[in-house]
Amino acid sequence: MLEENTERTELEKLGEFGLIEHLTSGIETKQPTTKIGIGDDAAVLDIGDKYLLISTDMLMEGVHFDLSYAPLKHLGYKSVVVNLSDIYAMNGTATQITISMAVSNRFSVEAVDAFYEGAKLAADIYGVDIIGGDTTSSLSGFGISVTAIGEVEKDKLATRSGAKENDLICVTGDLGSAYIGLQLLEREKAIFKEDDKIQPDFSGKDYLLEKQLKPEAKKGLRRMLDNAGITPTAMIDVSDGLASELMHLGKMSDAGMAIYEDKLPIDPLTISTAEELGLDSSISALNGGEDYEILFTVSQADFEKVKAIEGVSIIGHVTDKAAGYVMVSKGENVIQLSAQGWNAFK
Amino acid sequence: MLEENTERTELEKLGEFGLIEHLTSGIETKQPTTKIGIGDDAAVLDIGDKYLLISTDMLMEGVHFDLSYAPLKHLGYKSVVVNLSDIYAMNGTATQITISMAVSNRFSVEAVDAFYEGAKLAADIYGVDIIGGDTTSSLSGFGISVTAIGEVEKDKLATRSGAKENDLICVTGDLGSAYIGLQLLEREKAIFKEDDKIQPDFSGKDYLLEKQLKPEAKKGLRRMLDNAGITPTAMIDVSDGLASELMHLGKMSDAGMAIYEDKLPIDPLTISTAEELGLDSSISALNGGEDYEILFTVSQADFEKVKAIEGVSIIGHVTDKAAGYVMVSKGENVIQLSAQGWNAFK
Repeated sequence: MLEENTERTELEKLGEFGLIEHLTSGIETKQPTTKIGIGDDAAVLDIGDKYLLISTDMLMEGVHFDLSYAPLKHLGYKSVVVNLSDIYAMNGTATQITISMAVSNRFSVEAVDAFYEGAKLAADIYGVDIIGGDTTSSLSGFGISVTAIGEVEKDKLATRSGAKENDLICVTGDLGSAYIGLQLLEREKAIFKEDDKIQPDFSGKDYLLEKQLKPEAKKGLRRMLDNAGITPTAMIDVSDGLASELMHLGKMSDAGMAIYEDKLPIDPLTISTAEELGLDSSISALNGGEDYEILFTVSQADFEKVKAIEGVSIIGHVTDKAAGYVMVSKGENVIQLSAQGWNAFK
Repeated sequence: MLEENTERTELEKLGEFGLIEHLTSGIETKQPTTKIGIGDDAAVLDIGDKYLLISTDMLMEGVHFDLSYAPLKHLGYKSVVVNLSDIYAMNGTATQITISMAVSNRFSVEAVDAFYEGAKLAADIYGVDIIGGDTTSSLSGFGISVTAIGEVEKDKLATRSGAKENDLICVTGDLGSAYIGLQLLEREKAIFKEDDKIQPDFSGKDYLLEKQLKPEAKKGLRRMLDNAGITPTAMIDVSDGLASELMHLGKMSDAGMAIYEDKLPIDPLTISTAEELGLDSSISALNGGEDYEILFTVSQADFEKVKAIEGVSIIGHVTDKAAGYVMVSKGENVIQLSAQGWNAFK
């Protein structure tokens, strides 16, 4: 009955990042405890001796996950892990989570149990307390909202905005595998739709499926950096693809970013499976998303220290802002990076 | 492809509270900062000098709101306010919020703007910072998740579990009006469906519609209690109906509750409109829900002090656990209360 506005602009015209920027531009914070509001992996509150970190994510069926191949228990696990990743991406320690879900009557108590079992398992493994949430019905589908809480010593906080020219760009683990895992699942789903007597063949692909369906967050990185005596200058988690995250770091740090294709950590199984699927593994690493690795920058002076950390790759360096965001290809061409990361409105 | 469990129990068999209890029973907290986890209006974290409060709610289109009569700007406002109410119900001060939303392509940028404008207005009026959130698409409908953050001095915290025998039961404002407002809107919607040339007639009913569509939270209560020198022994916000909240307080405080029908604060407009709709206003107050008033208990010694606070009614007293949860009716009958509050799974 009530309409506030007669104009109509489609959401996909702005895209996810565009919409968030559109909605939140001009928001000012007034509370003395608010140190960082919108715009980093987590908000930062000054609670005295330490900073409190808060991050929240919403995951919707059919947009973020497909229950035809994502088991609910894995989904519960992943919902927690992807939020903890945002706390680790501030160089913080995750301490608590809240888990909210909206479920339609298509789901049984047993289905909701499976989801919650997965969430509890992740909370247990990562050592965080489940301290709240909400459980309600929805008209259709499964919706999830998780809020993660953490803390960090004030001198250890790493935001997106501290990268300096000549800093080294580092990333944990390997990239592109979750995306290739998703493509495998989508392929088998399409085959299954054509002929439901054909069972999916994922033999030898466990690693890719696990990176997609049951990823882990980099809880251990903080301790490794501490042991090495490193405080990163900037940090972000790789959820939307490396290219997109590099551009976030660059934009927030007022700097350029240069990476090298031959330095990208890509698992051999990702490379061979990408080929099998007719995909480019470097592009999967740059634009695939859902890696939940941590991208961070450290001072040049920390080169030897960071090189010695297992599971961390140095992939490039921070440049002057004017140099933009580039990748030097294997053929030594300089390619401009563009953010083709995950856009939930496409 | 993957099914974890072959049994099927319908969600409505457990209901909302039953499902939450089923999922969360046995959850233990291990972090030293977790003082109260699941089970109160907000979780309580020990951050040093003060307690940090965190509460989260999920609101789904078609379950919690009907966009055929709830304007999106009001919905944005209400989504924030109902979460702040949970912070005030711990005797706390609200400081920050995160706002997440999932929207289908049925909605335009202008629609999302209207929602967010309402949320920003509430944040501004209540003096809280918007520090984060998530914006994504959904396959259908509008989903909202808000997390509110607050703080409270350690000696001022009021939980659900501190009510003692002989304490006075008090409630702010008036009850049942939001429920009657909803019934009015539903009636007019039904009439409009029959004949869309008939425009809704809400003349003189503004108060009831406002309580339903754009409620306010009791931010001012804390200051009034402080000025009166009162720290409540227990507190809860009235979101699911008075009866349900009394039973929560009783259960958590290991006590009985006795209230008096003739003491229930019910607005004359609520009474007359309930009559017009063929409803009982006392039952609307007991079971209606969405009042966002604060129910609290104070020591008998504070009787004179609490009586002097404007906008607060003393409606009964805490009894021995064995006496159960009862209302003494206007006809002086003792009626057992049952929680027929809001159940999102019905």
